[in-house]
Amino acid sequence: LQRRAQSSAESVFARMSRLAAQYGAVNLGQGFPSDTPPAFLLEAARRSIGTLDQYSPPAGLPSLREAIGADLGVDGADIVVTSGATEALNVLALSLYGPNEGSLPDQVLMLEPVFDVYVPQARLAGAEPVTVPMNLDAAGWSLDMAALRSAVTERTRAILLNSPFNPTGTVFSRSELQEIVALARSNDLWLISDEVYDELYFGERPTSLRELAPERTFTVGSAGKRLEATGWRVGWIACPTGLASQIAGIRQQGSFCTPVPLQAAVAAALPIARAEGFYERLRAEYGERKNMLVGGLRELGAGVYEPSGTYFLTAQHPAWQAETLVQTHGVAVIPGQAFYAFHAPPAGLLRFAFCKSRAEIERALGQLATSQ
Amino acid sequence: LQRRAQSSAESVFARMSRLAAQYGAVNLGQGFPSDTPPAFLLEAARRSIGTLDQYSPPAGLPSLREAIGADLGVDGADIVVTSGATEALNVLALSLYGPNEGSLPDQVLMLEPVFDVYVPQARLAGAEPVTVPMNLDAAGWSLDMAALRSAVTERTRAILLNSPFNPTGTVFSRSELQEIVALARSNDLWLISDEVYDELYFGERPTSLRELAPERTFTVGSAGKRLEATGWRVGWIACPTGLASQIAGIRQQGSFCTPVPLQAAVAAALPIARAEGFYERLRAEYGERKNMLVGGLRELGAGVYEPSGTYFLTAQHPAWQAETLVQTHGVAVIPGQAFYAFHAPPAGLLRFAFCKSRAEIERALGQLATSQ
Ligand SMILES: CSCCC(=O)C(=O)O
Ligand SMILES: CSCCC(=O)C(=O)O
Repeated sequence: LQRRAQSSAESVFARMSRLAAQYGAVNLGQGFPSDTPPAFLLEAARRSIGTLDQYSPPAGLPSLREAIGADLGVDGADIVVTSGATEALNVLALSLYGPNEGSLPDQVLMLEPVFDVYVPQARLAGAEPVTVPMNLDAAGWSLDMAALRSAVTERTRAILLNSPFNPTGTVFSRSELQEIVALARSNDLWLISDEVYDELYFGERPTSLRELAPERTFTVGSAGKRLEATGWRVGWIACPTGLASQIAGIRQQGSFCTPVPLQAAVAAALPIARAEGFYERLRAEYGERKNMLVGGLRELGAGVYEPSGTYFLTAQHPAWQAETLVQTHGVAVIPGQAFYAFHAPPAGLLRFAFCKSRAEIERALGQLATSQ
Repeated sequence: LQRRAQSSAESVFARMSRLAAQYGAVNLGQGFPSDTPPAFLLEAARRSIGTLDQYSPPAGLPSLREAIGADLGVDGADIVVTSGATEALNVLALSLYGPNEGSLPDQVLMLEPVFDVYVPQARLAGAEPVTVPMNLDAAGWSLDMAALRSAVTERTRAILLNSPFNPTGTVFSRSELQEIVALARSNDLWLISDEVYDELYFGERPTSLRELAPERTFTVGSAGKRLEATGWRVGWIACPTGLASQIAGIRQQGSFCTPVPLQAAVAAALPIARAEGFYERLRAEYGERKNMLVGGLRELGAGVYEPSGTYFLTAQHPAWQAETLVQTHGVAVIPGQAFYAFHAPPAGLLRFAFCKSRAEIERALGQLATSQ
């Protein structure tokens, strides 16, 4: 097999879920919710099954492109539907940077901690991933703008951002994003903005990068994250005007189109979610679970970095290690090093997901409290 | 954008479906059925929706891997579930051949006419696609074994076969496959066997290449083709023993996992389809539609190459061109040149799909008969 296949290990998220099942542990690892998706989504899917069962165009069902566009305030013609955000990110990697045969490969800048798939996807595309570490101190995580600026080279083609940021929970401020846009403009870089947690924030509504730089921003979104159906694999890319058909051309080579009955269900559900205040309820509920987990972990002596968005938080505790906790305490979490490909992770960093039920969070805290 | 994105045109199948809709034409182009999927599949999906909505492992739901394995007579541990056969083929391209930095790229052999996505997928993987033309004479399509043999070079890594063969309808005989296996063994090549039409044949049951060379054959299959749900995007790869986890490692970077409620539905449906004789009924029905179309086209003066499998046939008629037929006669078909990337297509070659309703086939024949 090719080296890229030999070296691609099992995803840490899949691995921790497997270990959680094996040890009967509470799974605060992989980011999928314990709640079921909303009834309006499920009912729409049951109606679509048996009526929309054949191929859609690779760019997506027209009704879904329109619904996503309407939700984001962009033209439906600029939307490409993908099989989850993972595929969206892979399609963008293949479309935006490459190996430059005969000279050095393009570089793509990303922040570290880094979502696990960004690095191998950049390499699959033939490009070189370059990471800039986030600052971490007692006040929490922050962007090192100077380091980002000085990481740009002649070979840099794109900056890949994630806000709200998995795993740190950081939401970049409008002024930070404005500085990033200025950097991208002066170096003619693409911006890839992974905004799958766009509706999951606990303070002010995050700025969507596209508002600041529509001409160069590709926004990645996820119905799975928004509508609590991570296994449905319906994601999207909002492209700068005029580029969607070329992006769809790459997309069609990867999996042709996204499952059509699920596309139709999401098309029906997006306006309902907006109209019925679904996201507000989700934020309120997850805000409380976050507070439970933050408070509980602090009581156990952990240093907790409170997140401004996503359904994850990072924490450190001298006695805890992800690899052993799952077995010794029956609690699965993600080890910090899973998010570090180039730099050393902060000592003992762990990621906890709070998209799990209150009962699970309580059980996890109870189990972590034993034999402290 | 990267050259690979700039040069990836809209799929000919999507384009002809778009034109068919635009001109209100009968769509005998893209290979999706007019019939709805069987009730046992739809009911299983409606039950899974709302119960299995979060991520599965990248290799697939254990129940589906088992069901596919049981159906094919292979170990479920050797199965990787993919988002359709398109993704299966892409994952194999990335896993089995590459650019060989610093020297010449790997080559992969395929037959021409060639299914449209094989060539760009090989290039995306950094390899060089090389095609060997099929023979075509009054007796129909046949494999040029001598040409295949002499196309093998030091750089050849794999042979990519499709039997039953889209678009020609050819089913390779056991002895042809044995010769191909001997060629692969003596040159240490992988075999990729695209068998998405494995249950669609009109004579003897096709030999599955894996029976002859289990140590080197990757078999690609499709629930969409088998169960008349092409828009569901549930496919699979049966790998040589021991390779599934590495293949799943590449697969997880493309779209993480296949939509889980649809995986569960296919897991439930595969044994039912087998037990209830679903495929026999499908073959009987499509055999009659094939005969209708073959007879009708011959009456109109077309030269028709009768297929042994798939739901496609190829034909030639001096007065017909795919690009104009859709508008002038309201019949969408696929132009032969869509399947030719390197060699010249036989003059006036067209592909007709007969997975459409009898009413549509009749209507198409009626419209083709006008102003002859
Ligand atoms: C695609 S598996 C990872 C799910 C997730 O977003 C996470 O746990 O970080
Ligand atoms: C994936 S779109 C093409 C469908 C098909 O198999 C065909 O029409 O050949």
